[in-house]
Amino acid sequence: MNPKLPADRTRVKRLPERGAYDKQTIYSILDEGLVCHVGIAVEGQPFVIPMTYARSGDKLIMHGSGGSRLMKLLKNGAEVCVEVTHLDALVLARSAFHHSMNYRSVVVFGRASVISDDDAKMAAFEDFFEHVLPGRWFDARKPNAKELAQTAVIELSLEEASAKIRTGPPADDEEDYILPIWAGMLPFEITAKPAVDDPKLGSGIARPDYVRRYTAKRRK
Amino acid sequence: MNPKLPADRTRVKRLPERGAYDKQTIYSILDEGLVCHVGIAVEGQPFVIPMTYARSGDKLIMHGSGGSRLMKLLKNGAEVCVEVTHLDALVLARSAFHHSMNYRSVVVFGRASVISDDDAKMAAFEDFFEHVLPGRWFDARKPNAKELAQTAVIELSLEEASAKIRTGPPADDEEDYILPIWAGMLPFEITAKPAVDDPKLGSGIARPDYVRRYTAKRRK
Repeated sequence: MNPKLPADRTRVKRLPERGAYDKQTIYSILDEGLVCHVGIAVEGQPFVIPMTYARSGDKLIMHGSGGSRLMKLLKNGAEVCVEVTHLDALVLARSAFHHSMNYRSVVVFGRASVISDDDAKMAAFEDFFEHVLPGRWFDARKPNAKELAQTAVIELSLEEASAKIRTGPPADDEEDYILPIWAGMLPFEITAKPAVDDPKLGSGIARPDYVRRYTAKRRK
Repeated sequence: MNPKLPADRTRVKRLPERGAYDKQTIYSILDEGLVCHVGIAVEGQPFVIPMTYARSGDKLIMHGSGGSRLMKLLKNGAEVCVEVTHLDALVLARSAFHHSMNYRSVVVFGRASVISDDDAKMAAFEDFFEHVLPGRWFDARKPNAKELAQTAVIELSLEEASAKIRTGPPADDEEDYILPIWAGMLPFEITAKPAVDDPKLGSGIARPDYVRRYTAKRRK
């Protein structure tokens, strides 16, 4: 367990019994995801942008074009809120009111820092590829100096992170359990469909093992 | 096609060729989703909150506890940004730099309005249930006066909505196509696993047809 009490903005206020603050829970939710939703505010106007990410130790790393508005704001130290959500099941209660969803989500607050050293950027790219598709980094043509210069990499400490989780069956009001209404859960699964070759793939290039083994469920 | 030019905050700036502004595209992406990410700013601090939603005509409807901070802010007319993302595939290029993902996303800007009339709230709940699991609303025990009073329902015009989409194979630099590196797509699918009965389900209550037929792919 994280020994510190969470900061006010990090503490789960709505249904606090669903909150979790231990690293293992938070990191496992992050490690399973591919897309995060990044929130920033510009003169009171909120923006939410979907981005890919990876966890590298106690940091979240993200990258994008150095010329994008988001990366410029993040590089300039804007306050950021990053959210990752996994939807696990529809939860059907007897009452409409108690219908719910099972989910695991993480929210991170903070200000990002720029990774500007080229070696550190390359290491971040490796972490990023290993998060998304282990093995791919070692096959791909590595970024050249121009590509490296065009790509901004930022990191965000996971110090101010919290998880919010709902699991299990519906929770109806006591007097509703007698109603002759089906109740239960409809779980989801994200699965990988068969790989599709690039139409421009050269002849004699086989699918690598990490592609053939790949399923979206392979994450820790 | 939406005949108007999009407002500045709605126009896709990064990779504008991926932007789409026609209702059919935007609505079909919204209709396929279950979770949106709602961004608000409170004194410069961004917050991103995952919420369920439905589209009702030209509006997005959302609901929550009337006592929650988010619903209070939305009811008070805070600027909001709502984002929905579907991740369709990993896109593996020959160069690390051109790796990408196929996705369909929608972003909506605006200020929400409260639906306070009880009949209109009930109609919104029906829309919401029909979006998530058609048929369920007609089985569930309907909200009573107390539950209705506890639940805040808000609507957000889809006037300022835009889509951003990437499809198709990787786009490598011309000189990289000769490299002996596999390239292609790893598509995802969200599927429904078998329904799970509530452990407290009364005997003799069968699964309704809409549960047995249900798959997460059933959406338009």
